[in-house]
Amino acid sequence: MMIAARCTRLGIPIVKNLTRVSSTSMFKSTDLNQHYIHSSVTCFPKCELTSKRYQIERGQFSTISEEDVNFFTNLLGHHRVINDETELEGYNIDWLGMVRGASSVLLKPKTTEEVSTILAYCNKRKLAVCPQGGNTGLVGGSVPVFDEIIISTALMNKVENVDTWLGVVTCQSGCVLEALDEHVSEYGLMIPLDLGAKGSCHIGGNVSTNAGGLRLLRYGSLHGSVLGVEAVLASGEIVDCLSAMKKDNTGYDLKQLFIGSEGTLGLVTKIAINCPPRPQSVNLAFLGLETFDDVLKTYKDAKKKLGEILSSCEFIDQSSIECVEKNLKLKAPIGAHPFYMLIETSGSNGIHDEEKLNVFLEEALGAGLVTDGTVATEPSRMHHIWSIRERIAEALINDGCTYKLVFIYDISLPLPHFYKMVEDMREHLGSNILRCCGYGHIGDGNLHLNITSKEFEKDLLNLIEPTIFEWTAKVNGSISAEHGVGFKKRNYIHYSKSSGAIALMKQLKALMDPNGILNPYKVLPDN
Amino acid sequence: MMIAARCTRLGIPIVKNLTRVSSTSMFKSTDLNQHYIHSSVTCFPKCELTSKRYQIERGQFSTISEEDVNFFTNLLGHHRVINDETELEGYNIDWLGMVRGASSVLLKPKTTEEVSTILAYCNKRKLAVCPQGGNTGLVGGSVPVFDEIIISTALMNKVENVDTWLGVVTCQSGCVLEALDEHVSEYGLMIPLDLGAKGSCHIGGNVSTNAGGLRLLRYGSLHGSVLGVEAVLASGEIVDCLSAMKKDNTGYDLKQLFIGSEGTLGLVTKIAINCPPRPQSVNLAFLGLETFDDVLKTYKDAKKKLGEILSSCEFIDQSSIECVEKNLKLKAPIGAHPFYMLIETSGSNGIHDEEKLNVFLEEALGAGLVTDGTVATEPSRMHHIWSIRERIAEALINDGCTYKLVFIYDISLPLPHFYKMVEDMREHLGSNILRCCGYGHIGDGNLHLNITSKEFEKDLLNLIEPTIFEWTAKVNGSISAEHGVGFKKRNYIHYSKSSGAIALMKQLKALMDPNGILNPYKVLPDN
Repeated sequence: MMIAARCTRLGIPIVKNLTRVSSTSMFKSTDLNQHYIHSSVTCFPKCELTSKRYQIERGQFSTISEEDVNFFTNLLGHHRVINDETELEGYNIDWLGMVRGASSVLLKPKTTEEVSTILAYCNKRKLAVCPQGGNTGLVGGSVPVFDEIIISTALMNKVENVDTWLGVVTCQSGCVLEALDEHVSEYGLMIPLDLGAKGSCHIGGNVSTNAGGLRLLRYGSLHGSVLGVEAVLASGEIVDCLSAMKKDNTGYDLKQLFIGSEGTLGLVTKIAINCPPRPQSVNLAFLGLETFDDVLKTYKDAKKKLGEILSSCEFIDQSSIECVEKNLKLKAPIGAHPFYMLIETSGSNGIHDEEKLNVFLEEALGAGLVTDGTVATEPSRMHHIWSIRERIAEALINDGCTYKLVFIYDISLPLPHFYKMVEDMREHLGSNILRCCGYGHIGDGNLHLNITSKEFEKDLLNLIEPTIFEWTAKVNGSISAEHGVGFKKRNYIHYSKSSGAIALMKQLKALMDPNGILNPYKVLPDN
Repeated sequence: MMIAARCTRLGIPIVKNLTRVSSTSMFKSTDLNQHYIHSSVTCFPKCELTSKRYQIERGQFSTISEEDVNFFTNLLGHHRVINDETELEGYNIDWLGMVRGASSVLLKPKTTEEVSTILAYCNKRKLAVCPQGGNTGLVGGSVPVFDEIIISTALMNKVENVDTWLGVVTCQSGCVLEALDEHVSEYGLMIPLDLGAKGSCHIGGNVSTNAGGLRLLRYGSLHGSVLGVEAVLASGEIVDCLSAMKKDNTGYDLKQLFIGSEGTLGLVTKIAINCPPRPQSVNLAFLGLETFDDVLKTYKDAKKKLGEILSSCEFIDQSSIECVEKNLKLKAPIGAHPFYMLIETSGSNGIHDEEKLNVFLEEALGAGLVTDGTVATEPSRMHHIWSIRERIAEALINDGCTYKLVFIYDISLPLPHFYKMVEDMREHLGSNILRCCGYGHIGDGNLHLNITSKEFEKDLLNLIEPTIFEWTAKVNGSISAEHGVGFKKRNYIHYSKSSGAIALMKQLKALMDPNGILNPYKVLPDN
């Protein structure tokens, strides 16, 4: 109730920055959509402008004029050109409250043709733009740095077609992930992507970030699942690679350029995505373990014994659970353990799945790998357990202002090094921080390492970075597994990519966006 | 024995153009490697030079000089620079015997650095090159058109690492697919790609073609499975994107540019590929059906009832089976039917899988969708059934010279149009041809439509093309599902891609290979 009131006061549209409410959440509010709650960043003091905090120099772009606003108003109408400062606030700041731009105009096109007209105009006028979906990104990729015009996909939310034979949905890029999943569920299908922000993130943003999420282990990355993309280049030219076929080997696979390039090479307007059959039976085990070595062994066992029904394998450490329990009052279903795992199975035959899961769990318990655990099959219980995992980031940043700031690191590591990084960083940072915890998609080798502190301190940041990236590079990991590099990580990209690769990226950018108007200050390093 | 003798006579290396022998094949030969047989193109009269047959104009490239040969010989040694005309013959002609180049030099580098030196030299000298893996391609992408220097990956066959925790193999691009699969099988893993040419195709060729194969339905495309690529650009620069992490979102996903670009943007030297756990239990059903409508319903039922254990769903028509039975003396395990399906399950629990398969089959038989069928679980029987499917192309081209030529079309279609194309083409071509048959990966909407004729006739080709591509475009299909466009389909690419997309492809080519030396006359259309 309180949070809803805050949102209204600040004029932030209530459909923005939503995360799904756990059935046990104390923050449930009937003022908002029944299933959603605003996980607001607004309980923090207004954060500094990015340009100031990070001392960034503005690019050689034009400044928006009254004439420009008139052009956009003529094209879209008054209600789809937002230039009220208060209304713009929520679009200028990121979900973590760590980066803030100063855009004075937000545009809400409904069609590809409108996007094309907008970009052609901006390109001619050398006006920089920042494409924005649900603004749930964690690396500052979806908010402006200076006064870039925000192009929101919020009104581009039409589903164009569902091929029920092959299992493919074609839609506009502004469809909210969860709504799209609900739509295809009517045909017995599912979107092969699921993540905590599903209630507000847009599928176009997911594609532009190459979001990974909770079930990549089973369904693979968006580079495989996305079958077609329509995108608009900086010039306004529409690139139609919107095949809805499962296989299409006609020339270079251009759509891949738009997957994961965070809106810097083109603005994604439509997507065709492969939809697997929706599982008939889902089980979720929440397990407690004593050592990280047991976690690794349990993961390997799960892969072997659960095989094709394993749909998620997640890891959470004690510190992360403590934070969720304390700050969101979500109670873990088992007592305290140094480590926890969530293991989900999805299959077509409930009896078979249960049998496989039982055999796996009995053997894991018998071998002493797992010391306690519970299995949920009832939707509300599964929902509760998932919310513990999905809301860790929220617990860290949005807990009644106990913490002021959370530094989120999204790292890929070879499994033997996975938790060692958390331990080493904890030791390295000592008493300079409030908390250092780790969780993530262990089945994909993807650690989310979070560090909380009282406020944004440059000294602390210098203590964390680049040490954390050097550590990652030493074991051949990736400094961004699934969140992208956006604004915050762009100057560390060389820890994961060779100078030759970065040079080629820059050439691609220069080719496809010669004036550099598309999401400037993002992805590519300054030098 | 006869075929082996032919090969030896022509001096074609016996490790080239191999397909796995069925245990029932009459062509089994102990002269060759125990498991392989040469499915030679050499029983056909030597085909015309591509440049003559298709009236192609040579690009503005230099001609190889003695000095150039000396440079390569100094770099690689005599035995890795092949310039004997007879020895080169098998590398200049494709597997179908339809396109033939006139290269006078083939190079066999062993390392990325050697490839880099070769390409830097060729780029400086403006010498065109044709990268070649196992030369099993079907669109003329892997053989030269004129005198391009062939760069073979045959000696780049080292496995560098197997990450047994995450299930990832890193290897050189010349590893033979089947050998690589055998290698990772020692760790309980599998390569998520399987196709008829597995005994001779190279993984680098698979990646460069974005090969699909028999299990894409289950494991997805190489755009998702390939985690890392190292490639050498035309300039000789090595692009290292060889991450072996399951997730890596650091900048543009450059490796995707090399997947499916058929060696025209860079030469793939190393690959890291995701390897799923090897299934514990495999079943294969061979079914007979009366109508294509029954095929579609059975496919939909299989997807639903077999769910996560469905690993392949293939379709064969009567004419294709007749050809295999007649020409290869491979007997189908059930009597004559208008249509056949192969449905494979792979899982972690044999009892569960068998139960699911039995329920599915009983219901399909009970509903009259399937009228006859057999299930194989024993490896040699499964092998026999698979060889019927895998050797259809061989039966069509290599059957004691009953047919002189086969036109292979590899089309993606929405399922309701899938077999209508075969029927329409049969009617359209009438008595001008010997056979028009269809088979393919129905689970992926991927039809292989084959047309045989006595000899290469321009009039017949004009009767087939572009009609077949127009038909495909009308139903929003793809004119190349998994074989690529190579030389043969490049000028029809606009049936599946927009002019804007093609223009961007050409810009990418100009950026990455400004002298156009990498596999010229391939992929991109003339105009």
